[in-house]
Amino acid sequence: MRITALAGGVGGARFLRGLRSHLDGLGDGPHELTVIGNTGDDITLFGLRVCPDLDTLLYTLGGGVKESQGWGRAGETHVVQGELAAYGAQPQWFALGDRDFATHIARSQWLGQGRSLSEVTALLAQRWGLSEQGVRLLPMSDSPVETHVVIDRGDGETEAVHFQEWWVRHQAGVPAQRFVALGMDRAAAASGVLEAIRGADVVLLPPSNPVVSIGIILGVPGVRDALRGTAAPVVGVSPLIAGAPVRGHADACLAAIGVEASAQAVAGLYADFLDGWVVDPADAECRVKGARLAVHDGPLLMRDVASAAHIAGTALDLALSLRS
Amino acid sequence: MRITALAGGVGGARFLRGLRSHLDGLGDGPHELTVIGNTGDDITLFGLRVCPDLDTLLYTLGGGVKESQGWGRAGETHVVQGELAAYGAQPQWFALGDRDFATHIARSQWLGQGRSLSEVTALLAQRWGLSEQGVRLLPMSDSPVETHVVIDRGDGETEAVHFQEWWVRHQAGVPAQRFVALGMDRAAAASGVLEAIRGADVVLLPPSNPVVSIGIILGVPGVRDALRGTAAPVVGVSPLIAGAPVRGHADACLAAIGVEASAQAVAGLYADFLDGWVVDPADAECRVKGARLAVHDGPLLMRDVASAAHIAGTALDLALSLRS
Repeated sequence: MRITALAGGVGGARFLRGLRSHLDGLGDGPHELTVIGNTGDDITLFGLRVCPDLDTLLYTLGGGVKESQGWGRAGETHVVQGELAAYGAQPQWFALGDRDFATHIARSQWLGQGRSLSEVTALLAQRWGLSEQGVRLLPMSDSPVETHVVIDRGDGETEAVHFQEWWVRHQAGVPAQRFVALGMDRAAAASGVLEAIRGADVVLLPPSNPVVSIGIILGVPGVRDALRGTAAPVVGVSPLIAGAPVRGHADACLAAIGVEASAQAVAGLYADFLDGWVVDPADAECRVKGARLAVHDGPLLMRDVASAAHIAGTALDLALSLRS
Repeated sequence: MRITALAGGVGGARFLRGLRSHLDGLGDGPHELTVIGNTGDDITLFGLRVCPDLDTLLYTLGGGVKESQGWGRAGETHVVQGELAAYGAQPQWFALGDRDFATHIARSQWLGQGRSLSEVTALLAQRWGLSEQGVRLLPMSDSPVETHVVIDRGDGETEAVHFQEWWVRHQAGVPAQRFVALGMDRAAAASGVLEAIRGADVVLLPPSNPVVSIGIILGVPGVRDALRGTAAPVVGVSPLIAGAPVRGHADACLAAIGVEASAQAVAGLYADFLDGWVVDPADAECRVKGARLAVHDGPLLMRDVASAAHIAGTALDLALSLRS
């Protein structure tokens, strides 16, 4: 089975790790899982290219993530950042550990040698054993796209800050007026991205942020059309339970684009291509036009690999039922 | 007193730290010490700009050096390099610690912002409190100059490898045929370098490698002329004792340029501008045309700050005697 998923960071990574576990349990493999990762969060820090969502996917699928926070490396140390602070290097609001720094150094070195982000991501993925798991991780685009957030400066004027600055430094606490995906007008889908959507047996949308993760990937030229046109059922998992995001600040992001924070409203963002929608029992009343609803038989919370696998199973079963 | 010194890495740094200590002991300060550092050892590793000699000078003068090896940081850890090895990033023959990595990351970030190596070095020096010590560290040039070593490949052909590859990877064990300072034809002395030599009261040459440290600095356009023309006495300290280098591979470097490994022969390399030469008691027989000899009253070994200060005192006293 060829499964293609669009994914942001923590939620996407946990869901996909669960999906891998679920697929292993099925025992009818091998299955091919192509993950299209959001790169709108990417940022250059200390001159190094950092791809937070791709890294979270690599670390989580590769078994190197710091479980308690969902991103970054297990057993991390922070010597380099402490030294950079001593030198007065900026910025200091983004915490990078030493192991994590190595990823950014290797990536930046390889990008500097003229390799594409796709090639570099494949090199990094080797270390994490992704292909041995049947997983192929593709950045949504090889062109830099950076999500910026237009915020109110407080003096009546607005300013655009990098998404990471809003998300990490301000903890999404400053109301966002809108999001701008800088570079998107010049971006093309990375090699294999559109083909993976068109040629899939099943397309899944993990419970990633609908605005700044999935929403950004949907903005890549051709992606939305590929989702509308694919013969595969497209099934998503709600990132909201009873109007509240499971983690992160999806509610603040939805507010910025004038969309209600509800499972139903998020499904509406995908209405033109969504075939199935998995919700928490708390959202069983939810009605989604044109898509079949599946109410998960338990909380839509990915507390561990087993619960994530169970959710992934619900989504996959819904998709398979839509195929037949 | 305005003292200007040309310096390589470990030997230069230890001598200059000793000189600072000696000057403090004199108590007639403040004295200005301008250090012109060799940048021919500079290399780009993992996409980061590494300046081994400048860093050794910063760490040693700033109190952060790993004393037992003379370079690198005290209390160093090696998490980043281990991760880079796991990713298969190259090269792996140059050991960089985490604290050291931070220096290279900060430098590369600032260089990438368009700052000159002089400006970046001044920024790095702030953290190490150099100006509080009356020390100004200047790179010999803001243009990249990289020393390469022409070696015998073993099949009758020669190849040029970066100096660091020869020095660190091969431990100078492969006979060098010659040294080539790539980029020197386009290099200019960094701002302040020639002025510091011309305007000094005393110019000192620490016991740095005469070929690949001092020799490279002497190749920067204008430096040799400034040394010939300065009114200040130019006094050097022999890097050899009884024909053997105190540390490093100066003998292998001298062999490559066809110069005998002796205190006398090294002084000969500086004959056109040298006014005084400090040697070990073992080299008391040494005769240097045109320069006054001072035999140090003990081994010319910098075992600690006190012994280095004592050697620096001998050199400074010789220089001051030549002024009057």
